[in-house]
Amino acid sequence: MPAPFTAEQRHELWRASPRWLLGHGPRQLGAELAMLAQAAGNTPPDSYGSGGTLEELEAELAQLLGKPAALFLPSGTMAQQIALRIHAERARCRTLAFHPTCHLELHEQRGYQRLHGLDAVLVGRRERLLTRADLDALAEPVAALLLELPQREIGGLLPSWDELSAQCRWARERGVALHVDGARLWESAPFYGKSPRELCALFDSVYVSFYKTLGAIAGAALLGERDFIREARIWQRRHGGNLVSLYPYVLSAREGLHGRLPRVPGYVSRAREIAARLAALPGVRVVPDPPHTNLFHVHLPREGEALLDASAAIAEERGLTLLTRVRGCDVAGHSVVELSIGDAASALSLDEVEAGFRELLERSAR
Amino acid sequence: MPAPFTAEQRHELWRASPRWLLGHGPRQLGAELAMLAQAAGNTPPDSYGSGGTLEELEAELAQLLGKPAALFLPSGTMAQQIALRIHAERARCRTLAFHPTCHLELHEQRGYQRLHGLDAVLVGRRERLLTRADLDALAEPVAALLLELPQREIGGLLPSWDELSAQCRWARERGVALHVDGARLWESAPFYGKSPRELCALFDSVYVSFYKTLGAIAGAALLGERDFIREARIWQRRHGGNLVSLYPYVLSAREGLHGRLPRVPGYVSRAREIAARLAALPGVRVVPDPPHTNLFHVHLPREGEALLDASAAIAEERGLTLLTRVRGCDVAGHSVVELSIGDAASALSLDEVEAGFRELLERSAR
Repeated sequence: MPAPFTAEQRHELWRASPRWLLGHGPRQLGAELAMLAQAAGNTPPDSYGSGGTLEELEAELAQLLGKPAALFLPSGTMAQQIALRIHAERARCRTLAFHPTCHLELHEQRGYQRLHGLDAVLVGRRERLLTRADLDALAEPVAALLLELPQREIGGLLPSWDELSAQCRWARERGVALHVDGARLWESAPFYGKSPRELCALFDSVYVSFYKTLGAIAGAALLGERDFIREARIWQRRHGGNLVSLYPYVLSAREGLHGRLPRVPGYVSRAREIAARLAALPGVRVVPDPPHTNLFHVHLPREGEALLDASAAIAEERGLTLLTRVRGCDVAGHSVVELSIGDAASALSLDEVEAGFRELLERSAR
Repeated sequence: MPAPFTAEQRHELWRASPRWLLGHGPRQLGAELAMLAQAAGNTPPDSYGSGGTLEELEAELAQLLGKPAALFLPSGTMAQQIALRIHAERARCRTLAFHPTCHLELHEQRGYQRLHGLDAVLVGRRERLLTRADLDALAEPVAALLLELPQREIGGLLPSWDELSAQCRWARERGVALHVDGARLWESAPFYGKSPRELCALFDSVYVSFYKTLGAIAGAALLGERDFIREARIWQRRHGGNLVSLYPYVLSAREGLHGRLPRVPGYVSRAREIAARLAALPGVRVVPDPPHTNLFHVHLPREGEALLDASAAIAEERGLTLLTRVRGCDVAGHSVVELSIGDAASALSLDEVEAGFRELLERSAR
């Protein structure tokens, strides 16, 4: 049994460990800012949404994702509320449709209600993917349907292409606007054997994120028709997101896009290899198996606190961080861990990862 | 007569000129980020509003400004809407009182209405300072009174301490919450011979900015009682301002606070010296005379475009940028220029500034 650590001690041990399984490893502020200083060179700063590398990045994104216009925003929360407010006003209908685990429902303190006066109909069941059948059962008119690709909260699940197309047809047939929560859209493309652009073609408006798999400091983009984005800029100002300068985020997003987007298929393959090893461990389950993206859940027959202590002990003794957070779990004595695979895992062999999880299970056993 | 330049050419000439009158000169992205990289060292990043230098900065601000709690936010637009929404909900009244040139009225696309469902009563006349008499004439109940120190749009004017105290008493006697738009609060303190903390003591909630005189990349803070700031954090999330990482802004705000706040009284003195020289030029008027802060208006008997062309020509020929923007003016053939004095002006002698404006007037004459 490892000695129990304080939350702070754990975080220090994880940060200090030279090898990580998750994402791109811990952020190194000094190194990151020095890299951005290099990338910035002598470019002029952006100013309240125009000029500098900001406009260049927006143009590049519009091109890459096949939409007429793009808008860089500080956060996805802002991007999505803005998109849905515009769809709602255009439809003269304040009701939205989305899954019960939608980010707007779980993580935004109901901004869509309290700031925008919008209502939501929750479609489908929280523990599984949204389906066309769920949509067919919907009895109320809605302004917009939000689809999240992949559905993060349930393990990064993606519907089949046929199912996804059927859901989009449902909206099209009813004149319902289609918005995609593409926080992990880049990571979804390999599952369908399609480009991000082909996925975006299904939707009227698209939100993508730069800080997750692309590893930027923060930042998001909203894409759509020109008039839609023109309107979104007004809402950006209302939200307080039209900053005098966004260049640290813009530069960081551009670096992530150029450096990491080409590596995303590799992250997904590696996630599948790692998941296969973990799924073979006793009492361990991987969801989905195989993973659809570079993100998946690992169900472990252990208490969360014991896992975190074991992870800190392994970081201390072996210099390897396997996990830093545990999601709740409905089954007593079981825990769910979300793994997201990026650059960091490329320094680890599959044997090391497997051995690490074996040790984690041993150390966290009662 | 200078040759007319395109807007882009002007901006290039200004950016390339080695000497500036305004603020701290043009931003040098590479150098700025390299400086932040140095300042960051090995500190851990903040994460969704906690940890890292973010919490340290919030604690430092609370201490400095004498309020129980502080919240760092991406923008002042977000900070002020949040503050006023909270005051409105607590008062169970949706009406706010502020001056017609309030930032919320002019520059935020009516976010206070469209996002927060708040109404405003505009108090006082747009061309002059708000007064206690204006407040006494108010016939409707209001939840909060917003005072801006200084009133930027009319030249950075400040009311006398007695007048300001009388306005605050008006609110106190009626149980109306008092909020200060302190975008330039740091710069107001010298006028009163008081500390920023003593100014803040008048108000229930305080917004301060880091990107203006303090020269940070962007960023704002909201201060108030602990429960007020706890509530503000919820609204920050709703606004999409609870970013995964704010550290470039936080580091930059800290550098501005430590490096430039002690220099603010010097900026104000220099602004007065410069204003005195300009006020002596033929046909030129300075508002207010003398300036109350480091910001003031210069009224010039010239067309705006001619001034901008002359400024670009002087930048090209003498390597000196005197102005880069012209405010509109109600009198044909006249222009108003806002000057804000910071680090850049310390490299210029008063004679150089005066000679520069003489040349500007000559070159822009019809």
